[in-house]
Amino acid sequence: MTSKKLGKQTVAFASPPTIAGCANVVGKKEGEGPLAASFDLIQEDDTFGEASWEKAESTMQRMALQSALDKTGQAASALDYVFAGDLLNQCIASSFAVRGQDTSFFGLYGACSTMAEGLALAAMVLDGGFGNLAGAVASSHFCSAERQYRTPLEYGGQRPPTAQWTVTGSGAVILSREGEGPYVTHATIGKIVDKGIKDANNMGAAMAPAAYDTISTHLSDTRRKPSYYDLIVTGDLGSLGKEIVLDFFHKDGVELQNYDDCGVRIYDLQGQDVHCGGSGCGCSAVVLTGQLLDGMKEGRWRRILFCGTGALLSPTSTMQGESIPGICHAVAISTQRGD
Amino acid sequence: MTSKKLGKQTVAFASPPTIAGCANVVGKKEGEGPLAASFDLIQEDDTFGEASWEKAESTMQRMALQSALDKTGQAASALDYVFAGDLLNQCIASSFAVRGQDTSFFGLYGACSTMAEGLALAAMVLDGGFGNLAGAVASSHFCSAERQYRTPLEYGGQRPPTAQWTVTGSGAVILSREGEGPYVTHATIGKIVDKGIKDANNMGAAMAPAAYDTISTHLSDTRRKPSYYDLIVTGDLGSLGKEIVLDFFHKDGVELQNYDDCGVRIYDLQGQDVHCGGSGCGCSAVVLTGQLLDGMKEGRWRRILFCGTGALLSPTSTMQGESIPGICHAVAISTQRGD
Repeated sequence: MTSKKLGKQTVAFASPPTIAGCANVVGKKEGEGPLAASFDLIQEDDTFGEASWEKAESTMQRMALQSALDKTGQAASALDYVFAGDLLNQCIASSFAVRGQDTSFFGLYGACSTMAEGLALAAMVLDGGFGNLAGAVASSHFCSAERQYRTPLEYGGQRPPTAQWTVTGSGAVILSREGEGPYVTHATIGKIVDKGIKDANNMGAAMAPAAYDTISTHLSDTRRKPSYYDLIVTGDLGSLGKEIVLDFFHKDGVELQNYDDCGVRIYDLQGQDVHCGGSGCGCSAVVLTGQLLDGMKEGRWRRILFCGTGALLSPTSTMQGESIPGICHAVAISTQRGD
Repeated sequence: MTSKKLGKQTVAFASPPTIAGCANVVGKKEGEGPLAASFDLIQEDDTFGEASWEKAESTMQRMALQSALDKTGQAASALDYVFAGDLLNQCIASSFAVRGQDTSFFGLYGACSTMAEGLALAAMVLDGGFGNLAGAVASSHFCSAERQYRTPLEYGGQRPPTAQWTVTGSGAVILSREGEGPYVTHATIGKIVDKGIKDANNMGAAMAPAAYDTISTHLSDTRRKPSYYDLIVTGDLGSLGKEIVLDFFHKDGVELQNYDDCGVRIYDLQGQDVHCGGSGCGCSAVVLTGQLLDGMKEGRWRRILFCGTGALLSPTSTMQGESIPGICHAVAISTQRGD
């Protein structure tokens, strides 16, 4: 078999897997934002009827996966694999969501890059001939993230202007070897990039260098110009991280005209008191499975470069004085198989 | 391309990737156990010269990966991918270990099944044509695990007889598309199995049903008898979990003659005060990269079924009254490519 590698970090799929179905579930605040119309379910009660925020997050994942399967017309038992991850310690949102599903499970930890990591691995495994149908799922929940990473909600701590708001939401994508598009045509697997940012309330700045590294590597590996894509979109850099990415490219003499960030899109940054925008594994997962894939199906975009961005820190690493390692995985999605 | 699936959960590699090199690093207690001769480095000082247990664990991973690369005669930059994971919140042992390496990174969370999960994914990605060289790394550290999952070391809490001892160690395997064996010929990707065990001090019992499920599925998918393998070995069920697996097979009318557990092998269960044996991602990782692969090279075993076992709980899920989801991924390794 010939190599499917382009350059050092990019793979090109021989038979691009197709996105057979996708779905998402979000909380109240996300449902009050500008992308409300693109969400399958907006739950007014962020507990999702559960006794804890962690169980609520698991329930969101289960609902998103089930809804994506329903739209695809498949049972969970038809899945060859589920790839899933989240931000909680030991990724319990994912493990407890997939428990009871009759399917092989790969647990991932890519922080907020999880949806892109899962899509890339699922596409590699299907294109490699190891199955026909795979799911990629990711989630985050504002309340479970706040109490794990920051302070109890009841404390009501002030948030600095660089902070982002963890999205309450879960997105699920079903990839298939057969069927109509959109297609996953390429993936660029990121390296860990750490430029020494230590402020856990400024994760956009910590992840932006990784996003720049992966996007520029992708363009170089594929010999494409940014304009090849109708939209290049990062996961959750927020407004500050987005500016940093634009600056990096500007220094290279490249003006990214078609670039945006899911964390900027998901909220009304002025009106919803979210400072720099959305974050969390759920952020890019629900924007992808909402506005982005909807827009591709409606003909708004033909080619999207979806770049999941993750900050691989923990409260412990921050307390021990460590800087924040960032990562970004890019997945090229097109309505045309040949792109 | 024809499917490489056998049954629902097993894949057979068309061009089985080879284990080009492997290495391990362990702490003092592991170096006092029966497998001492199979470890590349036994560190008398469990801090590994670092200021925290978490940093010590990262250092172990970095040392194990570097040593495996050295044995393979490759630089880190020659790796197409590293797959790594650990037990720490947000998998910081892995992220901080791979930071600074010039290689694409996939973060995994499979609890103590991580080495098997990483091997399976690395083999799938290489056999799928997406690269030539991939690393799989996993670690655990007694001290970082105790303070995260249980009580501060200084507290000196009593351990119940069903408890296991988290291995301080890291193992790394370098898989290659080219070269002499041993070869990774098959992988069976586990489902999450949860039989309702809620005692976080009895993880062997929680994981044993998953091990039974994956091993019996593997045998059924491949139409092999247990005796096809010279050794079937689980990751870290310990002596109690091992007995449960034997019981399950006994009820099926099968007496597993060639079955053992890495957690039973790594310590002198009577002499080292470890109760039911070893556990942690490092347990199966260092036994595989030590005694097992050494033994294959020396002709002691031709075919091994390496079954990583993970308990996908967190302290939070336990405090919220949840039972413990278990998972097991099995990887078939043979000195013969055609097996």
